Amino acid sequence: SKNYKIAVLPGDGTGPEVIAEAVKVLDAAGRKFGFTTEKEYYNWGGAHYLATGETLPADAKEQLARHDAVLLGAIGHPDVKPGVLEKGILLKLRFDLDQYINLRPVKLFPGVETPLANKKPEDIDYVVVRENSGGVYTGMGGNVQIDTPEEVACQNWIYTRSQVDRCLKFAFELAEKRHTKENPWRGLSEEDKKAGYTSQLTLVGKTNVLTYVCGLWERAFNAMAKNYPTVKTAYCHVDAATMWMVKNPEWFDVVVTENLMGDIITDLAAMTSGGMGVASGGNLNPKGVSMFEPIGGSAPKYTGKNVINPLAAIGAAAMMLDFLGEKDAAKAIEKSIEYVTGNKLKSMAAGKMGYSTTEVGDLVVENL
Amino acid sequence: SKNYKIAVLPGDGTGPEVIAEAVKVLDAAGRKFGFTTEKEYYNWGGAHYLATGETLPADAKEQLARHDAVLLGAIGHPDVKPGVLEKGILLKLRFDLDQYINLRPVKLFPGVETPLANKKPEDIDYVVVRENSGGVYTGMGGNVQIDTPEEVACQNWIYTRSQVDRCLKFAFELAEKRHTKENPWRGLSEEDKKAGYTSQLTLVGKTNVLTYVCGLWERAFNAMAKNYPTVKTAYCHVDAATMWMVKNPEWFDVVVTENLMGDIITDLAAMTSGGMGVASGGNLNPKGVSMFEPIGGSAPKYTGKNVINPLAAIGAAAMMLDFLGEKDAAKAIEKSIEYVTGNKLKSMAAGKMGYSTTEVGDLVVENL
Ligand SMILES: CC(C)[C@H](C(=O)O)[C@@H](O)C(=O)O
Ligand SMILES: CC(C)[C@H](C(=O)O)[C@@H](O)C(=O)O
Repeated sequence: SKNYKIAVLPGDGTGPEVIAEAVKVLDAAGRKFGFTTEKEYYNWGGAHYLATGETLPADAKEQLARHDAVLLGAIGHPDVKPGVLEKGILLKLRFDLDQYINLRPVKLFPGVETPLANKKPEDIDYVVVRENSGGVYTGMGGNVQIDTPEEVACQNWIYTRSQVDRCLKFAFELAEKRHTKENPWRGLSEEDKKAGYTSQLTLVGKTNVLTYVCGLWERAFNAMAKNYPTVKTAYCHVDAATMWMVKNPEWFDVVVTENLMGDIITDLAAMTSGGMGVASGGNLNPKGVSMFEPIGGSAPKYTGKNVINPLAAIGAAAMMLDFLGEKDAAKAIEKSIEYVTGNKLKSMAAGKMGYSTTEVGDLVVENL
Repeated sequence: SKNYKIAVLPGDGTGPEVIAEAVKVLDAAGRKFGFTTEKEYYNWGGAHYLATGETLPADAKEQLARHDAVLLGAIGHPDVKPGVLEKGILLKLRFDLDQYINLRPVKLFPGVETPLANKKPEDIDYVVVRENSGGVYTGMGGNVQIDTPEEVACQNWIYTRSQVDRCLKFAFELAEKRHTKENPWRGLSEEDKKAGYTSQLTLVGKTNVLTYVCGLWERAFNAMAKNYPTVKTAYCHVDAATMWMVKNPEWFDVVVTENLMGDIITDLAAMTSGGMGVASGGNLNPKGVSMFEPIGGSAPKYTGKNVINPLAAIGAAAMMLDFLGEKDAAKAIEKSIEYVTGNKLKSMAAGKMGYSTTEVGDLVVENL
């Protein structure tokens, strides 16, 4: 039977509580589907930083690279200056482990409240592939004549063709694979289907302003499209994308975009599908070590109260299993989460679920 | 009696139809409130470009600078390559006339459908001040080794302190003024009110990633805040801002942000308040010539059918009058629009209003 080595970073605030439930579900899925997970815990995060002055040890990358995947709780501490942990831990791990894809499934589970009027689970079910290594996130730039009236600040938005290509390749392949019997066409017209298209990939950019950078994305996208004849391609400016995500989320199947635009639209997308309580994400290096996380924060005020919603962390564990190749286990966890949101929880909000954090974990295990 | 010289650019598609209604309302308001408008028409736009190869004449700036304000219909033509008219007309006018503020009122009128669940007109009523002259819109950057596997694309996101300061000053002053008897506190807690705050200004940025550029914005914002003791300041990352605009729009009063982030969040905001049919915007140069426009496009497929919604163009005319100092006329038009959306129109969508374009213009005039 297969054994997977998992680095677990519970992190700050309610991170350890949601991670405990994710691990509980992982173990139960392993028993049921015949695999084991060997966990090693790392205490990196805000509390560790405050105690030691260290964000990550110098060999963090090497330590994590020995594992098959990383499961992250939440990094964030009210006493740490904004930016320190984001740059020192979250972004640093993405860069050091070259996790060049940020994968964000956007799915409205049954029973989950959306702030959108008249939208049902079948209307909100798409995936955003966010480029996770480039753009303004490289941090190139600077300030001149700082704090004088003549100050100039500059930041470079930069992409290489290979950065763009590897991201687009992932997105096209995902779009191709996404068309299954249970998950048929999305966003395609009858004409498209007759023409042989089975899925749709929408590039989000701002070609009319970011001529150089989005121009590169567009050329690379159109060139690669030729290799994926069943994937219908579409393009949407980022400003318009936010409108359609709110008005017509059913138009989207797979969306691919650069780093900052992806950051913005995935948060919006998470909100439309029920908010931080239930959204999971993966920072992927398809040939290396990937990291999975609930995308909400550390929610310090709920710490230790056993009231936080662990479903996003459990969903992150399911994404991890899917990525490791345990497709059946991943699917079973996802179905169990859907059952629990649709039939058990009163609300997705902390303290309003009608169940405690640990009880929600138990419910997912029971319904696996 | 006052006379205002207005440059009218009806533009493409349905632009001329909505502008005709805006002009009808302008004239009626002039008769009622005792001012005249002297209009000069310019035919710049996609059709003119296709016929002549010219986006704007070399002296466009000088021609427009002779007027007190510009009223724009819509620029955009299906036969023109994307980017040409945006860069050659819209952005060029903003830059040439140094319209450094893009002002976008976000207001849900009674009777207008919002895609957000459970939000009422009183919940969606804020203003976004978008910086309109800098950032990635300057167009600095380039591509090296274009169309080879080694291609690198770079775009500069650049701000000067004075660009930031003049925008922030406008936003703080607007926030200060926005607190009136009819329009009391928004987004303030009881504690805030006791502390003497009357309005709120939220800076939207991404300080944890755009360290240099958003760092400058943040320092300038905090420094200027000291001069506006009644304005409570807040900060929000752009990714989070999109979430709250959908989940809790009632938290916002005045929002200020840089150019690209502003482009994104104002389109989202327009959608939450009923979409392009009713949203107006102003490109302002407080010491020069400002340009007002409905923010929807040229909607070519509805051209000449007398079915397009003219309310956004009429709203743009109201914003123009407000900016020119005709506050009472502006208010009267806004109230009339509210009456018409709340009591007359069946829908805001083209062809579904229950009235023709010209009839909607007449309704606004009748209810002035
Ligand atoms: C914490 C922050 C740097 C990060 C980002 O901008 O990528 C976050 O918003 C995310 O989406 O994971
Ligand atoms: C047409 C385009 C260049 C423009 C922009 O990005 O500013 C538009 O989206 C707007 O918001 O007015």
